[in-house]
Amino acid sequence: MQKIADVFSRSGVQALFITDPHNMGYISGFNGEGMLYISKKQKIIITDSRYTEAAEKVSAGRGFHVTEENAAHKRKKILQDLIEEDGVSIVGYEDRFMHCYDFSRFVNWLPAVQQWLPLEDQITAIRQIKTPEEQEIMAHAEAIGDAAFADILKEIRPGMTELQLAAKLEYQMKMHGATGFSFSTIAASGLNSSMPHAVPGEKVIENGDFITMDFGCIWKGYCSDMTRTVVVGKANEKQKEIYGIVLEAQTAALDGLHAGMTGREADAIARDVITKAGYGSCFGHALGHSVGLYIHEKPALSPADHTVLEPGMVETVEPGIYIPGFGGVRIEDMVIITENGIRNLTSSPKGLIEL
Amino acid sequence: MQKIADVFSRSGVQALFITDPHNMGYISGFNGEGMLYISKKQKIIITDSRYTEAAEKVSAGRGFHVTEENAAHKRKKILQDLIEEDGVSIVGYEDRFMHCYDFSRFVNWLPAVQQWLPLEDQITAIRQIKTPEEQEIMAHAEAIGDAAFADILKEIRPGMTELQLAAKLEYQMKMHGATGFSFSTIAASGLNSSMPHAVPGEKVIENGDFITMDFGCIWKGYCSDMTRTVVVGKANEKQKEIYGIVLEAQTAALDGLHAGMTGREADAIARDVITKAGYGSCFGHALGHSVGLYIHEKPALSPADHTVLEPGMVETVEPGIYIPGFGGVRIEDMVIITENGIRNLTSSPKGLIEL
Repeated sequence: MQKIADVFSRSGVQALFITDPHNMGYISGFNGEGMLYISKKQKIIITDSRYTEAAEKVSAGRGFHVTEENAAHKRKKILQDLIEEDGVSIVGYEDRFMHCYDFSRFVNWLPAVQQWLPLEDQITAIRQIKTPEEQEIMAHAEAIGDAAFADILKEIRPGMTELQLAAKLEYQMKMHGATGFSFSTIAASGLNSSMPHAVPGEKVIENGDFITMDFGCIWKGYCSDMTRTVVVGKANEKQKEIYGIVLEAQTAALDGLHAGMTGREADAIARDVITKAGYGSCFGHALGHSVGLYIHEKPALSPADHTVLEPGMVETVEPGIYIPGFGGVRIEDMVIITENGIRNLTSSPKGLIEL
Repeated sequence: MQKIADVFSRSGVQALFITDPHNMGYISGFNGEGMLYISKKQKIIITDSRYTEAAEKVSAGRGFHVTEENAAHKRKKILQDLIEEDGVSIVGYEDRFMHCYDFSRFVNWLPAVQQWLPLEDQITAIRQIKTPEEQEIMAHAEAIGDAAFADILKEIRPGMTELQLAAKLEYQMKMHGATGFSFSTIAASGLNSSMPHAVPGEKVIENGDFITMDFGCIWKGYCSDMTRTVVVGKANEKQKEIYGIVLEAQTAALDGLHAGMTGREADAIARDVITKAGYGSCFGHALGHSVGLYIHEKPALSPADHTVLEPGMVETVEPGIYIPGFGGVRIEDMVIITENGIRNLTSSPKGLIEL
């Protein structure tokens, strides 16, 4: 893989220890428990007997060999032998993922290593640009969310609790094929909707409530993400005003987003609309984030991110206005950055829905 | 808290950095984002404006003060001031939880610290013995699992997929009040049931299948855990034999379990039954594990764990027999260790259920 070769030449490491399970799966195709050892001379999956067969099956085509660890052939000895064989003295490791306890063990096991180089996000970054195959998987994951949203609109009733609503939404995603959830589903109603990360609770949904539903599923390992805000019953004027501003901000951001701009510039498009409408202080989070095997990846569409967006990155676009004592609105789509704009993966309606 | 005082005197640290969110919540009552700084002189919650009010509300009674971090008052400066104020040169940190990246930042920020002492499981261990209040919460969490199991028995039909079954089981737990799941629900049918940690998939449930359902929910922050294996249609002789042995092993372990014995001794009770029946090599995992804020805690009921069990520990008792090419059976209850025996929190039936 060219991107791994780039990490070697850029960082000067002689071997990589890959321990983040998502990075391990991405590089080797193997999704069980274990780790990768990659030097310039060889690529090894270290795993145990539960996974040996599976690891051999998926990774052979990518040039990996499988080494089985067990009581008689421990990871310590396996790594000592590999380090000696390859004459490695500089090892790169994933310090953003590895616990101190595990790192200490590596250091104790391998006195021959002179330098341990923290890789920060260098390995994770090779997953930023999604291949056409990954893009189709993510499109399908987002379509599961769309289907679940269509189902839930038929089920929302005053008298349900937020927890019941979240449970039904998760159930629908699973019935449409989801194998898991990107995060714990948010269903925030009434005054709770003014908290961007409200945890659904026993609050009963009432007539006149805004309900913000932020949800995503996992399909073939990849995450989806979307948010819709609806009104139970008839919307009042203030609700219509706030919803309209958020929708205008989101539409402007979707229209303006394209490869070559920075995350900061993308964020500014939506933020300007909301600020001009007088609600700048009520949009306290970033416009969006990258999505992939993890729900939150880099770069972000945020005032602090100067990364230039590239075709194939998958981003959320999710402006919001949150007013304590009143409620909040967030509208979120997940999109693929293209040369000239975006491909929007979310197809649920966005006009204000009154249930 | 006496147990924290014990950590100070035993380890010789002058301050503790608590960063594991479950340990932070247990010690301070605060469950948002942030960290705890505890010296012999003061107890501080460091958090941001989103959580300041909540942190003050819950933690004041426990002697904590809240310090707000923000752009003008960063965590680095807050910690530097605290360390200087208290004259701290030895800090204990949670190396089993902290990432290398975060630890490096602490080390860079705080040159006045002469020694960083990894605490391994010392903080987590203070949560091992559950208070009466915690025990009642866990009893309720397990009762939610019982209620969901009763519901699902009415819904299992040949033709459903494992994924659909898992989705329905999770949905029922949420409808009974669960706020989350202890782990991703296992529903393994037919030949898949021979894999202890099978991931539910598109396999269709067929007549004659064993179905192993291993599931648990979160309620008030605490985890539940249980497993039942049922047969779709009539069980054959081999299925009855295997089920009977596992049930005998589990019953023996539940009858024999009590405070004062070791995890190894508890494991041996069930293992002996299965070994004598000729299936010792088909029981590849430990008898059980502790449960609490995390689903897997210590001590374990395992051949490798010599910890003496104490009243108030909550343990799973889950022997199994797994036969590749045939299928598997696991029966699991969650129990509280008492002076003379156990209090079994699981009340779902255990005779072989034929659906």
